[in-house]
Amino acid sequence: MALIVQKYGGSSVADPERIKNVARRVARYRKQGHSVVVVVSALGDTTDDLIELAGKITDCPSKREMDMLLSTGEQISIALLAMALHELGCDAVSLTGPQVGILTDASHMRARIVEIDGRRVREELRRKRVVIVAGFQGMDAQRNITTLGRGGSDLTAVALAKALSADTCEIYTDVEGIYTTDPRIEPTAIKLERISYEEMLEMASAGAQVMQSRSIEVAGKYDIPIHVRSSFSDNEGTWIVKEDRSMEDVLIRGVSINKNEAKLTVRRVPNKPGVAARLFRRLADDGINVDVIIQNIGRSAATDISFTVPAGEADAAVRSLRGARKSIGFTDVSKDTNIAKVSVVGIGMRSHAGVAATMFEILAKKGINIEMISTSEIKISCVVARADGERSVRALHAGFNLTKRSHARR
Amino acid sequence: MALIVQKYGGSSVADPERIKNVARRVARYRKQGHSVVVVVSALGDTTDDLIELAGKITDCPSKREMDMLLSTGEQISIALLAMALHELGCDAVSLTGPQVGILTDASHMRARIVEIDGRRVREELRRKRVVIVAGFQGMDAQRNITTLGRGGSDLTAVALAKALSADTCEIYTDVEGIYTTDPRIEPTAIKLERISYEEMLEMASAGAQVMQSRSIEVAGKYDIPIHVRSSFSDNEGTWIVKEDRSMEDVLIRGVSINKNEAKLTVRRVPNKPGVAARLFRRLADDGINVDVIIQNIGRSAATDISFTVPAGEADAAVRSLRGARKSIGFTDVSKDTNIAKVSVVGIGMRSHAGVAATMFEILAKKGINIEMISTSEIKISCVVARADGERSVRALHAGFNLTKRSHARR
Repeated sequence: MALIVQKYGGSSVADPERIKNVARRVARYRKQGHSVVVVVSALGDTTDDLIELAGKITDCPSKREMDMLLSTGEQISIALLAMALHELGCDAVSLTGPQVGILTDASHMRARIVEIDGRRVREELRRKRVVIVAGFQGMDAQRNITTLGRGGSDLTAVALAKALSADTCEIYTDVEGIYTTDPRIEPTAIKLERISYEEMLEMASAGAQVMQSRSIEVAGKYDIPIHVRSSFSDNEGTWIVKEDRSMEDVLIRGVSINKNEAKLTVRRVPNKPGVAARLFRRLADDGINVDVIIQNIGRSAATDISFTVPAGEADAAVRSLRGARKSIGFTDVSKDTNIAKVSVVGIGMRSHAGVAATMFEILAKKGINIEMISTSEIKISCVVARADGERSVRALHAGFNLTKRSHARR
Repeated sequence: MALIVQKYGGSSVADPERIKNVARRVARYRKQGHSVVVVVSALGDTTDDLIELAGKITDCPSKREMDMLLSTGEQISIALLAMALHELGCDAVSLTGPQVGILTDASHMRARIVEIDGRRVREELRRKRVVIVAGFQGMDAQRNITTLGRGGSDLTAVALAKALSADTCEIYTDVEGIYTTDPRIEPTAIKLERISYEEMLEMASAGAQVMQSRSIEVAGKYDIPIHVRSSFSDNEGTWIVKEDRSMEDVLIRGVSINKNEAKLTVRRVPNKPGVAARLFRRLADDGINVDVIIQNIGRSAATDISFTVPAGEADAAVRSLRGARKSIGFTDVSKDTNIAKVSVVGIGMRSHAGVAATMFEILAKKGINIEMISTSEIKISCVVARADGERSVRALHAGFNLTKRSHARR
């Protein structure tokens, strides 16, 4: 009999009926004799509702108080799920992050887990109870309530799986698993049977929004197998696992698209050592996350630098740089939100040359212009015009033969 | 400069505008140099909404999980009030019951406070912060969240005032203070300047719903002066204090009415020793609170027993007794919800004879029939027909001259 950690996202517990649905699934596992720890997110729109409520009080709420406020969302979920399990005659107990002893640093709204004291959970499991844990939350050393940032419930689940030496960690979501690409864009996309931590990380940063990046990192670090699957069906989903030899046979695991970035171009930056460093240091200090960067290195006195940032941070980035125009010495900065970033990901790339060339050829054949390129060991990303984004995905999915069944199953 | 504990009820923090209103009041006290600890209830209807949500999951929720669920209501309030104070430039920090270290027993939904570890609160006060505490909640020795039952935020405030040796405890509500009777029934009712703990306790149990009884008990036990006042005005309210000589000069402090009880009559109960004990033990075991009891002691083999219970417990009481009809040996039990209990309260009664006679005379003159009578050292209650209730209040208020100004002020 296994120890299973299951995580259900907000859409899986959006209303009382769905909560009962989750309870039935959990009770079934329990009946099979497994020990089950369930991590839940807040009900559907609760978090947004709470943020709206805070907005009626202040425009810039204290982060500590936002954590105090938002953590109530998960607390409501865990109590209701416990009640639903009791209703099925299944013994269960709910625990908040602080009650579990999820100790974090004091960075409110994006706290990092420092340690998990699993004693209370283990004790309840010994009493044959399903343990329901509030996702997304913990406490700092002073017992202030903290939250783990966007997608934090995934992290709670993975970290708990680690702390409890669980056999599996199941992430329940509203899709059937990880696909070779977004099926809404390419209907022939195939559900992957397995994907490596590293590939999943690159897919996540390339735009696939199935799991939070940090939780994948932690799972990879401690080699915790993750099963991403749907809470609305019993189908096997996708396993995120440590890579093995056989995985390298596949050149490209999947194609991602991120339509949520903007391109900034800084014109006539002085072509001197240290200038680019000053420019990106400025952005970093203002908390702006820069993704793809290109710089035309020429012999002239000035050069242009382009980079992408999350669309929501673009205006702040422009403001940040304009404030430093004199000290850095460029002429202007412009913003282009009309872009999309398409990426191909696969650990097979490591041992196969020519993937980038193939990618460029596929796009060129469709007459798609590439504006920026960025590569990692197992990923190649191209920034294209927004209007070409989905067309690029379809072209790449076909061009790299991702519908062939050798590495995936329907 | 004083240390003040202020408690704001649900109606005082019903929406963002009212929360801002409370923040302005708190900030004003802080500006005057006082140390302020604020206890808040859940926003307006939050608690009812949460109960309704639980009702969609199960008909008989576990008490522990109800506490987990309901305690989120106050947590939302404290976070929002802290934000509102920050918005006014006033340093403030919110704390849940467990964070304050409000240790209770493990009786969920009606826990009793065992101890308060005031260290965190004192530390925050030293840092010149307003400390905002979630009312109604605490934790047991295993860190399970508990709630203190109806009106529990009053108890939180009083117990904190005790633990912190506060100078005053202010209870903010939507009325201006304690009146000689309910002004909605008798418009000439006068706001009392002072009332003793004991009188307030009797008024509360007689139906005046301004403050929770246990909190008055605790305040009386530790001699903590309570100031009951309105959160919507700056008027002085009513002080609940230790009685002194001058208070005895007033025969009757106030008149209360409770329209929320039902009368049960058990017919032909065997007239033998121990039968009444069995009957009321049965009710006690089923958690039913019995108030006024009358029994016709006769020489016959059987007698009738009547008693009152909260209206909401009447059906359960009937069920409870019917289940024991054979073992106790009565013929039938009937329910009458068409009653009202009117009471006169005053410590002056102790040293003045004839108050009961006066009361009965006043009611008799109006042709009002008395169905049951119950007395304590400082209270006399009469159960009358529901239709006669408010008329009785007006008659007693006039008959005992409560509009005279000697003991109260407008």
